[in-house]
Amino acid sequence: MSIEISVAGIQHHLDDSPFIAFLGLQCVSVSAHPASVELRMPMSAPLERGPGSGQFHGGPIAALIDTAGDFAIIAATGHGVPTVNLRVDYLRPAGGKQLVARATARRIGRTLGVADIDVIDDEERLVALGRGTFAIIDA
Amino acid sequence: MSIEISVAGIQHHLDDSPFIAFLGLQCVSVSAHPASVELRMPMSAPLERGPGSGQFHGGPIAALIDTAGDFAIIAATGHGVPTVNLRVDYLRPAGGKQLVARATARRIGRTLGVADIDVIDDEERLVALGRGTFAIIDA
Amino acid sequence: MSIEISVAGIQHHLDDSPFIAFLGLQCVSVSAHPASVELRMPMSAPLERGPGSGQFHGGPIAALIDTAGDFAIIAATGHGVPTVNLRVDYLRPAGGKQLVARATARRIGRTLGVADIDVIDDEERLVALGRGTFAIIDA
Amino acid sequence: MSIEISVAGIQHHLDDSPFIAFLGLQCVSVSAHPASVELRMPMSAPLERGPGSGQFHGGPIAALIDTAGDFAIIAATGHGVPTVNLRVDYLRPAGGKQLVARATARRIGRTLGVADIDVIDDEERLVALGRGTFAIIDA
Repeated sequence: MSIEISVAGIQHHLDDSPFIAFLGLQCVSVSAHPASVELRMPMSAPLERGPGSGQFHGGPIAALIDTAGDFAIIAATGHGVPTVNLRVDYLRPAGGKQLVARATARRIGRTLGVADIDVIDDEERLVALGRGTFAIIDA
Repeated sequence: MSIEISVAGIQHHLDDSPFIAFLGLQCVSVSAHPASVELRMPMSAPLERGPGSGQFHGGPIAALIDTAGDFAIIAATGHGVPTVNLRVDYLRPAGGKQLVARATARRIGRTLGVADIDVIDDEERLVALGRGTFAIIDA
Repeated sequence: MSIEISVAGIQHHLDDSPFIAFLGLQCVSVSAHPASVELRMPMSAPLERGPGSGQFHGGPIAALIDTAGDFAIIAATGHGVPTVNLRVDYLRPAGGKQLVARATARRIGRTLGVADIDVIDDEERLVALGRGTFAIIDA
Repeated sequence: MSIEISVAGIQHHLDDSPFIAFLGLQCVSVSAHPASVELRMPMSAPLERGPGSGQFHGGPIAALIDTAGDFAIIAATGHGVPTVNLRVDYLRPAGGKQLVARATARRIGRTLGVADIDVIDDEERLVALGRGTFAIIDA
């Protein structure tokens, strides 16, 4: 399935997934050269670790990282790529009004791509890191 | 915060987190020796990858793995442990009525614990693997 | 290049690599069903972390894990497979007369395989863990 | 054990380890702010994958990554830090006269540090990536 590499094109695909729509992910920017994407996840009550904690649960952070890495590779390939594996490092508790994931393709091979993802809070602190491998042809 | 190591004690903590309650995680079993836990995630429409796909999105699978690994370490320590980092391997598309994560502590150190997590679908196929490091004292 | 799945066949390939020959790896056992292999690394002075420490440096442990995972996948495929990525967890200082890596294929896909590797010291203590992805067709 | 944060101070520690001396690692540069280090590994016959292949075996690359990440954290802390875990991504076959690992601390916490490591060949191609967690207090 071909994906249009534009903020609107990626937003369309994000909104199409029930789980990503639940997270409320928004595409902030995308670039094909270098292949990279920026996604925003606003805080909302169902994403909280504990009720009223004001902190994001790790699950939405992992999903944000996975999705951002995926679209960084898609920005190079123009079609959907399944995640092969993913490393997530949680660096500090993550709160505030939103998180932003900045994902960059580090390698686009024939069958596999590798992306790095930094997650920043609204005070520009690095709160989590991701690195993932994605299958450019279906593994 | 002390956590009671029983199916009901863990279920109480799962239900207390807005995000985990959204996922609908249920504690199936828990053991302190060896430290291990089994969590169930039923399929529901908002967890789908694409609408009507019948497949779990990778985000809920990562969150299931993270939570199961966490409680495998809690089964040994009796108190909450933040995730330091996590590796997730997606082995095949995951559908069906539910997924079950079986998590086992591989190492309980003084300050860090390591857990392995296998995710099985309702036909007992291995669909994903997790391995995580958790901070027994807060890192 | 086809590889004979036997202790002698694997030992032949281990000895053929200058770096693996330096490490002194020895194939203890191999099985095609389930795909698994056991490799032994004897302690020697150039593998030490510090001189006279009696402890293995982390580098040889990572190389032992990588090689064992690789041959667990080869045990299923019968031909050489490059490592895509690898996670290594060091659980405790590793000394003694030898380490043994027990590697098992967890998934053999069309293009990728995943292996788990446990590293045990000569008192049967778990000293390190590995998990790796290997390209069954060249990535 | 306190370590002097200078090219000569780090070289002294590299040379002190039998395994690192075998690899022939050389400290090219080090900085405390931001905490980072550059290490060089010259090609030599015993580091080859296959005899006469001209390609580095993955084991020395993993060890180079581990050591560089370790010293990036040491550049911030001034004392030795054991590796907790490590992810290595092999992006392409790595040959040529030398590899250079550029390691940067991404997070220095109270008990744990995280470093990113890029490995470049002598044509400035990215050949491997590393990301590791290191215990600032002994885990």
